[in-house]
Parts: sequence; structure tokens; C-alpha cells
Amino acid sequence: MVFENVLVVDPVDGEYAGIVEVTRGFISGVRRRAGCPDCELLLLPGFVDLHTHGSKGVDSLSMDEKGLKKWEEFLYSQGVTYFLPTTMSAQPESLISSAKVVERYLESNSLTSVGGIHYEGPYLSLRRKGAQNPSLIREIDLQEVDSTLNGTIKLLTMAPELRGFREAAALIQRRGITLSIGHTDASYDDMMKAYKYGCKRVTHFPNGMNTLHHRDPGCVGAVFSEDFSVEMIIDGVHSLPSFVKMVFRIKGSERIMIVTDTISAAGMDDGEYELGGLKVILKDGRPTLEDGTIAATVVLFSEAVRNFKTFTDCSHKDLARVSSYNALRSISIEDRGRIAPGYIADFVILDRELGIVETVLAGKTVYKK
Amino acid sequence: MVFENVLVVDPVDGEYAGIVEVTRGFISGVRRRAGCPDCELLLLPGFVDLHTHGSKGVDSLSMDEKGLKKWEEFLYSQGVTYFLPTTMSAQPESLISSAKVVERYLESNSLTSVGGIHYEGPYLSLRRKGAQNPSLIREIDLQEVDSTLNGTIKLLTMAPELRGFREAAALIQRRGITLSIGHTDASYDDMMKAYKYGCKRVTHFPNGMNTLHHRDPGCVGAVFSEDFSVEMIIDGVHSLPSFVKMVFRIKGSERIMIVTDTISAAGMDDGEYELGGLKVILKDGRPTLEDGTIAATVVLFSEAVRNFKTFTDCSHKDLARVSSYNALRSISIEDRGRIAPGYIADFVILDRELGIVETVLAGKTVYKK
Repeated sequence: MVFENVLVVDPVDGEYAGIVEVTRGFISGVRRRAGCPDCELLLLPGFVDLHTHGSKGVDSLSMDEKGLKKWEEFLYSQGVTYFLPTTMSAQPESLISSAKVVERYLESNSLTSVGGIHYEGPYLSLRRKGAQNPSLIREIDLQEVDSTLNGTIKLLTMAPELRGFREAAALIQRRGITLSIGHTDASYDDMMKAYKYGCKRVTHFPNGMNTLHHRDPGCVGAVFSEDFSVEMIIDGVHSLPSFVKMVFRIKGSERIMIVTDTISAAGMDDGEYELGGLKVILKDGRPTLEDGTIAATVVLFSEAVRNFKTFTDCSHKDLARVSSYNALRSISIEDRGRIAPGYIADFVILDRELGIVETVLAGKTVYKK
Repeated sequence: MVFENVLVVDPVDGEYAGIVEVTRGFISGVRRRAGCPDCELLLLPGFVDLHTHGSKGVDSLSMDEKGLKKWEEFLYSQGVTYFLPTTMSAQPESLISSAKVVERYLESNSLTSVGGIHYEGPYLSLRRKGAQNPSLIREIDLQEVDSTLNGTIKLLTMAPELRGFREAAALIQRRGITLSIGHTDASYDDMMKAYKYGCKRVTHFPNGMNTLHHRDPGCVGAVFSEDFSVEMIIDGVHSLPSFVKMVFRIKGSERIMIVTDTISAAGMDDGEYELGGLKVILKDGRPTLEDGTIAATVVLFSEAVRNFKTFTDCSHKDLARVSSYNALRSISIEDRGRIAPGYIADFVILDRELGIVETVLAGKTVYKK
């Protein structure tokens, strides 16, 4: 399989006209061309969404394997070649049940973009609950934490100010799972301590956390003071475009990861949906709880990518970082996310307006416009 | 006059062992030495404080020339070789009266660290008044603005969201006066517009302005998004040390200027003082209004410099920038602030703990420990 006359965009080597060869699912060769006046298409590492609760009516907490398949296929149309179904705060049995669905799914699908699962909660700050169900948020219980972890868990969002955080962090990290800080009312010092414990990743920054003050720098101050990597929801609503641009300026393209945080209503019509046991009303493409709280998003990944480009005027190389490479590295996935020999051939092919033209998963075309 | 065996600290060339020669008030030669194991002293450009309301019982709005002399001499002991007496919001007659005192003072003192005057107000935001007297804050009146300007005005702090700002800015800039943005409730867009009008300087950031939110980035968001230079009060109270460190990380040493914002009580004992017509109570070194509002500071410049070094762990070169060079350049003063041939010989000589050992004004020692 050969991709000719494309503008290759690699998060490390940057952008150049080239030819990409694929053999048995891996990139076997990348050659540069002198120029490419007829290059109409960009070839980037496939998009990665590590924070999505659902799409097309499928929700991570209630899905079965058929639903997960539907979700995965929908995300192909968005250029996504790796994602983590993400649970809301829930009872341990529910979390385990979702993890089991993913486990069985991975066993029966050797070619899949499902990378594992992301538990967003339930060990979060009640004060910074956002659209999380308060009745399901709870204190850290080490035994309970332990009981919910299986081999499919890749990422776990927790509030670092909770009692027992340090022990829980150690337990989770020993299992090879990445911790992300989110839905938190942590002080600046709590954040810095968490950073020292190896928690260098922040969930949907700066939503669901306290904000900056010069006499109380808090979560946002800590994020700007240390090399935390941050998920960001790039819908122009959770953070204004100007704020996204500012964060890009402060953190750089190495420390931002686009996530959608979509709910099951993504890709669906306006109506009523459910999220972690709470009713969500989707109206004019904006999902809210009954009290008006923003309830995650229905933004599509490719839209978020185009938004990021518009908001920040970044380079294609930067875009490859924030849409794929950084997220993969944040959970220690090293075998994809680059356009270079030896890497898994996960690509998204885009037109010059960043519309999705083709999605390639391990060398196989899984979506074509 | 020769300064031998010192560690020269220049804001551009950095730090090196050297010998500095002075002829008729100017630096005539700077030579590097191979090494200087016995160098106990640092030689930096003299400190610059562009925002100080008073010291030693002298206040900018009520001072006479004798008082200004006392103030200047006190600042020599702090290593300050250039400063702007700074007025609070006041009636035009009071502002003019202060400007006249400075004008006469400059006429009769050829060797002085008084650079001119800084009007902080009265065209400010009532909502962000801080310790400014609300009864003296007012709307922009172009004719009134014009009437208060004379040749000694170097800097003027104004809120950019006020009606008539653009016209006032143009008028002030035509007179060669630098505008600084402060005591403001400006939106992000107001700030960006002001930046485009050439107002790239911010008064005692981030005090007296709205703060950052991801759906309303405001003044702080704008400062982090553009190349604004910011005054900062480095007393550890107006901004926490962690916040100062964060701003240093975001803005870099090129965009920060230490100011003291001291009131007449600086260098004095606890007691009652006045600031812009309001009573200030100094207790345990902390000045507040009767309602508890922080009322400027009594921090000394050399303390602020040591604080900055402690808070940020910056280099000596960075320190020379934030304590002198940046402030001078922000008001277009180009003939001092560097340790290089041709510049005015304004120095501060410090021991290794950054204690003031000697202050040199245009080649003349004006303070020695």
C-alpha cells in the first residue's frame, strides 16, 4: 500500500511532500519528494480521543459490544484511529461491567481503534462536579479502587486533594495506568505534590477546576507553573477561542491534547439523552443538564481539530501533536502517532480545509469520503 | 573612576568578571577579566522604580522640593538611580501642582534620580479602584487631560475601557508620554484594542484588574496572550510568590518590571498615614485602608529585588532586566540601564546576598553602606 503525492505531517519531523509505504499494517518507508505542487492532501497520524463518553446514541456505561462497534465506526468518519471509551462517576459494578465489555471487545476484534477505557471518576471533588452525578461521586476507598481496575484501564481521572490520593496514585501507577487530574478543587500545593507523584496530566483543562487568582493560584496557576499536559475541549464554548489561543501560547503544542468529551448524543439530533444517570437536553447542538450546567459536548473530533487551527493559527505539525501524538505519549503508547518507518500505519488523510477524506487503521482503509 | 574586580551584570550581555571605567558621568570602558575568584561584589545598572507614591513621610501629592530631596536620598540607600514620583487620582490642580514641584526640582538639580512624574489616574475604573479615592476617579475629559500634561510627565495610567480612551491615548502619546493600563475592568477585546493603539504596558499587574476565566479571559488573559510588559509589586502579598514565579515563566524576564508602589509610610514606623485623601493604617509593615483594602506597600526596592530572586530563582542578568532595563525602555529611556560604553554611569553595587553596598549616580557615589 502506497500513499503518493501527499503532504506528510509528522509531529516531530514536521511537514514535507512525500510518499508513504505501508507493509502488513506498519509504515515500511517514507520518502521525501523535491516538491509537490499537486499535493492536495495531508497525511497525519490518525486522531486520538482519550476522553469521550459516547456517540450515536451509545454510552460507555450502558453499551454492549454491538454499540461499541457502532461508536468505533462513527469515529472512523472523524479520522479517529485510537480512543478510550470514558465512564462517568458510577458504582464499581457499573465501571467493571463497562471494562468487561471493552475487554471482550478487544478479545474478539484484533483490528480496532478502541485502546481501552478511561474512568473519569468517581473519586472527584463534589464542589467541581460539573455534569457528574453528585450522588455517585465519593471518597477514595483503596480496596474499591483496586477492585475496579483490569487490564483495559488506560487512564483514570481523580481529584488530588482527596484523602488517600497518594496511596491510590501509587496503586494505580503500579498497575501501569496513567492518572489524570480533574474535577478538582485542589490548591496550588496539592497540584504540585501530585506532579511530584508523577501525575502530570490534566483532564479537560480548565473545566471542572478552580481558577487563577494572584493570591490563590490554584489549579490553573499550577498548570501554568509546571509541565503538566492538558486535555482541552475545543468547541469554542467550554473555553473561548481566545483562551485556547492563550493556553497554546503558554503551554505550547507539546502540552495540549484535544479531546471531545462527547456524550451519546454526539452525531444525533436534538432531544433528551442520559449521562451518568442525569438527564441531558440537547438543543441546537448544546447539551445541558436540566439546571443549565454545560454537560460535556457533541463536538466532533474533526471539528475540534479545525477549531484548534482557526483559534491558534498553529502549524500542521502542531496540529499533529495536539490531535494525536501528545495524547498517545501521555498514556505511554509509543508504537503509533508518527509518520515514520516502524510505526503502526494509523493515518488520517485530510483535504486542505482539514475535512476528512480517508481514515486508515493499521494500513487498512476504514473510512473513505 | 574605576570599579575593579566586580561581577558585571548587564541585562543584554549577562554576567562576567570585569573592570568598569567611568569618565565624566559616563561609562568609558568595560573590560573582561579571565576570572575573578575574589569578586565579592556585583555591579548592576541602578534600580528603577516607575511607580512609587512616597517614602519617609513624603507624599507625591503634598510634597515640596525639600521633601522630594529627602525621598530621593532615601531611595539612594535602596540602589534606586531613577524613579518617577507617582500621583494618585486627584483634581487637575493637584496633579499640576505636583508636576510643577518636579519641574522646579529638575531645573535646580542637574544630578538627580528623579526622572519625571507618573500620573496613576484619575481616569480609572471605579469598580477596580483598589486604594484609589473613588470620589476623585472620573470620566475622561480630553481638555482636562491636556491641561494636566507638562514636560515632566513620563507615564500615565489609565483604564482603556473608558469612553474617549482612544482619543486620549493619541493625545498623550503625541506628547511623548507612555500610557500604562491599570485599575481597569477592561474586557479581553478592550485590552487587545489598547495594545493595537500602542499601549503595551500594564500597571501593577495583576492588581486592580479583573482576573482570568476561560469564558471571559479579561485583562489577565490579554496580558498572557500578547507582548504586554507588566509592572509587578514583589512584596509576596500583592501577588503570592508562586504567582510571581508563574508570571516569570509565562512572560519571561523581558516583560516584567519591579515597582514598589510605596506610600509615604515606606521607611517609617507603624502609624496612620494618608494616601490620595484616604486614611491608611500601617501595622506590622502592612498598609491598609480602614476597610481592610490593601493600600499599596511599604516594601523597599532592594527587598523587592531580593524577593524576586527568591521567588523565581532567576539569573542576575534577568534581575538586571526586571529591576532596571525593562522599566527604562518602557518609557523610551535609552541612555542608561546597561553596563556598556557610552551609557550613563548609574550603578548599584550589591554583595552576594543582594544587599546594597553602594549606589552610583552618573559616576558619583550617592550612597555607601
